[in-house]
Amino acid sequence: MRFLVLHGPNLNLLGRREPEVYGRMTLDDINARLEQLALHHDVALDIVQSNHEGALIDAVHAAIGTADGIIVNPGALGHTSLALRDALAAAPPAIEVHLSNVHAREAFRHTSLLAPVCIGGIYGLGAAGYALALEALIDHLTPREPAPAGEG
Amino acid sequence: MRFLVLHGPNLNLLGRREPEVYGRMTLDDINARLEQLALHHDVALDIVQSNHEGALIDAVHAAIGTADGIIVNPGALGHTSLALRDALAAAPPAIEVHLSNVHAREAFRHTSLLAPVCIGGIYGLGAAGYALALEALIDHLTPREPAPAGEG
Amino acid sequence: MRFLVLHGPNLNLLGRREPEVYGRMTLDDINARLEQLALHHDVALDIVQSNHEGALIDAVHAAIGTADGIIVNPGALGHTSLALRDALAAAPPAIEVHLSNVHAREAFRHTSLLAPVCIGGIYGLGAAGYALALEALIDHLTPREPAPAGEG
Amino acid sequence: MRFLVLHGPNLNLLGRREPEVYGRMTLDDINARLEQLALHHDVALDIVQSNHEGALIDAVHAAIGTADGIIVNPGALGHTSLALRDALAAAPPAIEVHLSNVHAREAFRHTSLLAPVCIGGIYGLGAAGYALALEALIDHLTPREPAPAGEG
Amino acid sequence: MRFLVLHGPNLNLLGRREPEVYGRMTLDDINARLEQLALHHDVALDIVQSNHEGALIDAVHAAIGTADGIIVNPGALGHTSLALRDALAAAPPAIEVHLSNVHAREAFRHTSLLAPVCIGGIYGLGAAGYALALEALIDHLTPREPAPAGEG
Amino acid sequence: MRFLVLHGPNLNLLGRREPEVYGRMTLDDINARLEQLALHHDVALDIVQSNHEGALIDAVHAAIGTADGIIVNPGALGHTSLALRDALAAAPPAIEVHLSNVHAREAFRHTSLLAPVCIGGIYGLGAAGYALALEALIDHLTPREPAPAGEG
Amino acid sequence: MRFLVLHGPNLNLLGRREPEVYGRMTLDDINARLEQLALHHDVALDIVQSNHEGALIDAVHAAIGTADGIIVNPGALGHTSLALRDALAAAPPAIEVHLSNVHAREAFRHTSLLAPVCIGGIYGLGAAGYALALEALIDHLTPREPAPAGEG
Amino acid sequence: MRFLVLHGPNLNLLGRREPEVYGRMTLDDINARLEQLALHHDVALDIVQSNHEGALIDAVHAAIGTADGIIVNPGALGHTSLALRDALAAAPPAIEVHLSNVHAREAFRHTSLLAPVCIGGIYGLGAAGYALALEALIDHLTPREPAPAGEG
Amino acid sequence: MRFLVLHGPNLNLLGRREPEVYGRMTLDDINARLEQLALHHDVALDIVQSNHEGALIDAVHAAIGTADGIIVNPGALGHTSLALRDALAAAPPAIEVHLSNVHAREAFRHTSLLAPVCIGGIYGLGAAGYALALEALIDHLTPREPAPAGEG
Amino acid sequence: MRFLVLHGPNLNLLGRREPEVYGRMTLDDINARLEQLALHHDVALDIVQSNHEGALIDAVHAAIGTADGIIVNPGALGHTSLALRDALAAAPPAIEVHLSNVHAREAFRHTSLLAPVCIGGIYGLGAAGYALALEALIDHLTPREPAPAGEG
Amino acid sequence: MRFLVLHGPNLNLLGRREPEVYGRMTLDDINARLEQLALHHDVALDIVQSNHEGALIDAVHAAIGTADGIIVNPGALGHTSLALRDALAAAPPAIEVHLSNVHAREAFRHTSLLAPVCIGGIYGLGAAGYALALEALIDHLTPREPAPAGEG
Amino acid sequence: MRFLVLHGPNLNLLGRREPEVYGRMTLDDINARLEQLALHHDVALDIVQSNHEGALIDAVHAAIGTADGIIVNPGALGHTSLALRDALAAAPPAIEVHLSNVHAREAFRHTSLLAPVCIGGIYGLGAAGYALALEALIDHLTPREPAPAGEG
Repeated sequence: MRFLVLHGPNLNLLGRREPEVYGRMTLDDINARLEQLALHHDVALDIVQSNHEGALIDAVHAAIGTADGIIVNPGALGHTSLALRDALAAAPPAIEVHLSNVHAREAFRHTSLLAPVCIGGIYGLGAAGYALALEALIDHLTPREPAPAGEG
Repeated sequence: MRFLVLHGPNLNLLGRREPEVYGRMTLDDINARLEQLALHHDVALDIVQSNHEGALIDAVHAAIGTADGIIVNPGALGHTSLALRDALAAAPPAIEVHLSNVHAREAFRHTSLLAPVCIGGIYGLGAAGYALALEALIDHLTPREPAPAGEG
Repeated sequence: MRFLVLHGPNLNLLGRREPEVYGRMTLDDINARLEQLALHHDVALDIVQSNHEGALIDAVHAAIGTADGIIVNPGALGHTSLALRDALAAAPPAIEVHLSNVHAREAFRHTSLLAPVCIGGIYGLGAAGYALALEALIDHLTPREPAPAGEG
Repeated sequence: MRFLVLHGPNLNLLGRREPEVYGRMTLDDINARLEQLALHHDVALDIVQSNHEGALIDAVHAAIGTADGIIVNPGALGHTSLALRDALAAAPPAIEVHLSNVHAREAFRHTSLLAPVCIGGIYGLGAAGYALALEALIDHLTPREPAPAGEG
Repeated sequence: MRFLVLHGPNLNLLGRREPEVYGRMTLDDINARLEQLALHHDVALDIVQSNHEGALIDAVHAAIGTADGIIVNPGALGHTSLALRDALAAAPPAIEVHLSNVHAREAFRHTSLLAPVCIGGIYGLGAAGYALALEALIDHLTPREPAPAGEG
Repeated sequence: MRFLVLHGPNLNLLGRREPEVYGRMTLDDINARLEQLALHHDVALDIVQSNHEGALIDAVHAAIGTADGIIVNPGALGHTSLALRDALAAAPPAIEVHLSNVHAREAFRHTSLLAPVCIGGIYGLGAAGYALALEALIDHLTPREPAPAGEG
Repeated sequence: MRFLVLHGPNLNLLGRREPEVYGRMTLDDINARLEQLALHHDVALDIVQSNHEGALIDAVHAAIGTADGIIVNPGALGHTSLALRDALAAAPPAIEVHLSNVHAREAFRHTSLLAPVCIGGIYGLGAAGYALALEALIDHLTPREPAPAGEG
Repeated sequence: MRFLVLHGPNLNLLGRREPEVYGRMTLDDINARLEQLALHHDVALDIVQSNHEGALIDAVHAAIGTADGIIVNPGALGHTSLALRDALAAAPPAIEVHLSNVHAREAFRHTSLLAPVCIGGIYGLGAAGYALALEALIDHLTPREPAPAGEG
Repeated sequence: MRFLVLHGPNLNLLGRREPEVYGRMTLDDINARLEQLALHHDVALDIVQSNHEGALIDAVHAAIGTADGIIVNPGALGHTSLALRDALAAAPPAIEVHLSNVHAREAFRHTSLLAPVCIGGIYGLGAAGYALALEALIDHLTPREPAPAGEG
Repeated sequence: MRFLVLHGPNLNLLGRREPEVYGRMTLDDINARLEQLALHHDVALDIVQSNHEGALIDAVHAAIGTADGIIVNPGALGHTSLALRDALAAAPPAIEVHLSNVHAREAFRHTSLLAPVCIGGIYGLGAAGYALALEALIDHLTPREPAPAGEG
Repeated sequence: MRFLVLHGPNLNLLGRREPEVYGRMTLDDINARLEQLALHHDVALDIVQSNHEGALIDAVHAAIGTADGIIVNPGALGHTSLALRDALAAAPPAIEVHLSNVHAREAFRHTSLLAPVCIGGIYGLGAAGYALALEALIDHLTPREPAPAGEG
Repeated sequence: MRFLVLHGPNLNLLGRREPEVYGRMTLDDINARLEQLALHHDVALDIVQSNHEGALIDAVHAAIGTADGIIVNPGALGHTSLALRDALAAAPPAIEVHLSNVHAREAFRHTSLLAPVCIGGIYGLGAAGYALALEALIDHLTPREPAPAGEG
């Protein structure tokens, strides 16, 4: 399996910006952890961070036909980018991750334009959210025995 | 550690009701799986399902001082019950779980009144969401070494 | 045939409360009349009244697999209970009844959360509304000759 | 007794238009059924269908002083015509009928401008709705013994 | 001078309908009074009443090039008819009249779609409103000496 | 008869301010004209202009028990002053006048907080609006013969 | 006199939950104080606390015909329960009490669905609010001499 | 202790205006009663009534450093005056009083701009509301023994 | 092929009304041009203009089963007529045309009730819009070779 | 003549993404067709596709002074990019094209931020929409004889 | 040059009220600084502070014809006073100043009713904002050489 | 000191685009003026203009730790870019500048998403606004003597 991990605008600042909200772990720390976990599950990762909406869309397009799933933390673009939504609607199954509990912050962070075209989402669980998303994506893509499905 | 697992109204119907949305796994199946995982992590579980808002609030009250965390799938009450929200605000840390991708369904399911008083949430990942919540709760409650925090 | 007749909160006060709005007939009077009509049509009735949302949901669940249809006057819960809606969405076909013309009263009574998951509704026709609903439910469940359908 | 039966715009298409929503019965079928039922109850019917708001208003005016009640299926005009509402407010008691469950369709069909000036309404019960309205109107206009009123 | 006097839907009911709101004077009484006043001012009147939006628009079109001004009581169409608004925007100067104080009644009567394309309006002053409008229209169309204008 | 004529904030600027909207006539010109007309009808006028909401309220209070009617051009306070509304609700019958067509200007000028407690209003007819209001007020206060009322 | 004192969901947590908002006094402390004050005024109290909406409605029903007044702190149900509102509308006069200043907290706490059917309310004055409500209720129910009324 | 008692616009009309809403007691009656109660509690009162927002603000400013608390019935200014709100935010603790049940009247009376900067409020309890506010203010300002606080 | 060309209210005024918005070409000019183009493409046209909503609906009904497509410029009815929308939903494929750029004009012109039941639309391109619609309709109805479709 | 043809985000996916909505034709197919048509009309085309808002704005800037008109399919940016709108407002005349009927899809696609600064638009007519836009642009830029204008 | 400096309600409290928001500088300090700067630029200042809306409007009126520009800090009246707006619309060019960053505070402070009739505004820069406004006003009123204008 | 000066989309068009709104001065003129002023104050400037949101965010990131303050004219991105907001929230203190009076233009320009995370803003004062911002930023960053602070 091959997954695209997409980090949106300002996530490169992790560890520097508002540590009481986002924690002191840097994006490199998070990526290193994810790589380790992916290795353990025999999954290849393509990791992209960009502050440019267009670059993120390009990365999603590149994943069509090459990746099996997407883990996306869109940052603030999740609340404003319909173009990124349209890209994800045409791409492999995606899970949206937010480090902080967006629903306990400003009202504009309560709405995700991407959520309806992703299969699910995880928020407020910090860096652990990425790891959980990776596990959920593997689970989602693993063929099950016919008996009880449960992905409802 | 001891966790309260709270299932709200209509979740007792799982497996019978709208299988294309919620899957064919029953609540007993989900609970059995969770018990197994909890056993593995040496966590005790109190599992409660009720169609009565008052009974759910009573259960949350009972968890104050006795449980270390809460996993709550409030069903439709998550969109309407401010009383349940007030109960959770006074209770140990909680994670909200929804089986289906609520953001891809009717508009009234897009808003959770509980989200701002929970530490985080997981939606759209089916029964696996409960398991991920259990792991996240353990992770959240485990004291970390001083170095990189990352629960932002 | 077997129908569940469900009376929501405060309907036990009928005849005592705001008679200029709800009339002077008591709930017992209404139920007696319905039983008579049901007898005439050879339909069995289960009649439940409760001021507890949870008890109403439990009754709807009990009707799954045992009843052929539901007549529900949700009282004020029709404007607030998404949990009751979810229960009805999983249950046999239901018709919503309101004694008074809810559209000529306060704005909050103009919206029914249940209407989209019922097959239809009757309002403003007093106790006669229940009888009409019973006839409509029988009509709805009676297999028709192939010719003109007309249930649009 | 004499009733006006008023069919609004596009109802002449019944049986031809969106049969999965409105059924395959034509307006002539419905009218024939109603005439039969009216005959049985010794009620005279004036039946009018028009795609012209003004013609419908003219018909309501003609009913003032000549008819005892009105059964009105306003079609889409029920959502837009305040002029028809004003006409009905000055006319004999009316019951609003919709063939389909308007509350399970587009949002603009959820609001009736006529409902507050009618005595009640019936929706989603197909052609049977007209028959139920006729019975309810007779019931409403029949003088009762002093005892239990029940038209609340 | 020649004026069009336009009475919208339901105004033919005046004197019969909701006398506590609209008074007991009939439309014929009002028209007779207006004719008398017009005669006094040497103004010719074309008086049209219709319950048909299209007929009212046709009348407005007919007034283009033949009448010097319009007095329009649109009834409920004033709150819903953008087509009538477009007609008036292309027609001689108009004054909108409402018999009752529309701002003390239902919220939907507080908004006039016609007001922005009329030169002004009069409401709540009963039948006298028509007479005042006739005087105001004459005043508006009378060429003034250069000195103080005051039609702001 | 005795009337209070109330001019709100900025009306003292008439003739100086935005002449293309309000005309070139000054407030003194308008008052002089009104006095002349009042003399003709044997009505006494108390004329007050103030930029102070409190002074306008005081004037309305002074009119209770001493004046028979009020002509009020509240200026911009008509859109914001609930206190002035409460004062007028306790005072003799009032007619609201606006010189310009408020409905053809900024959206905030389309709503009058005073309208529901006045008997009626006149807008967009310039200085003539005051004269029409005076005539309407006399008409409103003149006892009629029993026959046709027409103040609806 | 006999009063029902009704405490809604989560009020049993008083003294344990968010003391900086609700104080450190327990519900037992408050009830004890109220009993003492009631004794002093020769009033009997029925005190009910429940986290179940249905139980609160049942208690209100029980008060009809047995109690002279109601003091109700609905907790969060005051913002969501139309069913409780309907119950109170049919019950003896009620005063709504909130311990904290609900208007200085989250927006959803600014609206009370019960307020329109209560005679009045007290908020933000802590446990003293209950005592004031008890005095106000006695005052409201005490027949006055004809002279100055003052209950406006 | 020294309190400012502030009566807003139109309260000088008490006893004259809408007695069915505000009662027949005059403002002098209310003030006399309050003075008596204050004397009993050894509290000095400064009583101000004005129809001028500015005068009310000036009075609040004067209370800074000279009064210990404020009882304010802002009348309609409570719904519109942000300037009065800013003044109260800088002043000693205030309690807002409304004679009538503002929540059972027009929608614009349901919102108080002052409530968030007052410590609490009382409405619908008539003239008694002032007396209760005076007692609550004394209670609020009285130093308590360390034990149970209860001002939540 | 046979097309219905439908012109709504006020379009008969073209060339006379607001030429700076709608141009100086008359409706006859436009129809003549369209006839010529239709002749060229061997398409028969039925052209209807009416200021009556009902007449437009009748024309749409007449087109069912007789025409292959519809070009409709609904004028202002496009923003208000749900009845016309329901008629078009039951009719052959339609393209909506507006002469002016409705999105650069008043807000009420930005919403078309017909758009969701038409296959597409053209606005702001003047009389040329009709010709483009005719070509698009032919294109839409022309069977394509299997290869690339492109009508998305 | 020289036109800029601008394709926004995700349009490079055409033929791959949601073929039931956008068809199976690729962007290269569309461009080839357009080039052919442009050649026929002796128009030069600059064709740009980008997923980067900034690149699209740069292209619009480059067209100022070099191109005579713009055909723009902004994709989802049409609903969110005010910066692109500002660029187009400063550029040669533009026509907005959407392949699908945006008004029959999600609500967020019903609003175009660009429409008010374009001369017109075409939607729902598939790849043919580009061709029609090219013709309309030529028509718009072609000097007409003085007689009937018709570009309203 | 002569400028009016207008300070609205509560600004007389500067230095006393919420120092963490407004700083510790008093209004006298600010005025003294401004006078010094004005002297330096050879500008005369009229400085007015009032808590009375009417007094502020009177001051604006007095500036018409006597002052060249206005610096206005309306305090909370900037969010509520349309009457002050109308006054400024008729007065010399004005710049609106707010000491604090109103956009980082309560939502009601985000909207200025005055902004559209001022030439510009400055907020959040403390007392320095007044000085900057004075410089900007001089700059705005200084005739420029023909070359580059730049006051856009 | 070192400041970042950030110019958003379309500002490179200054002098070419809508001169009646933005003036005839080019961006180079503005930058030259700012450089001169900065030199005078011994401040180094980094000036960046881009039509790419991502490039602006990158520039803000680069300023963290290297610049002391930011002057940002975000152009239309100020109304839509939450990602730019998040970047500024993590950066040195910023002042937002708009050349034109955004509050006198289209409604969408009245809201700035950046304002709450900047220290203040200046609008409508043309190119002078940049110079004033530079002075204000220096003032803001200059340590003051203990006495009167005044940055409220």
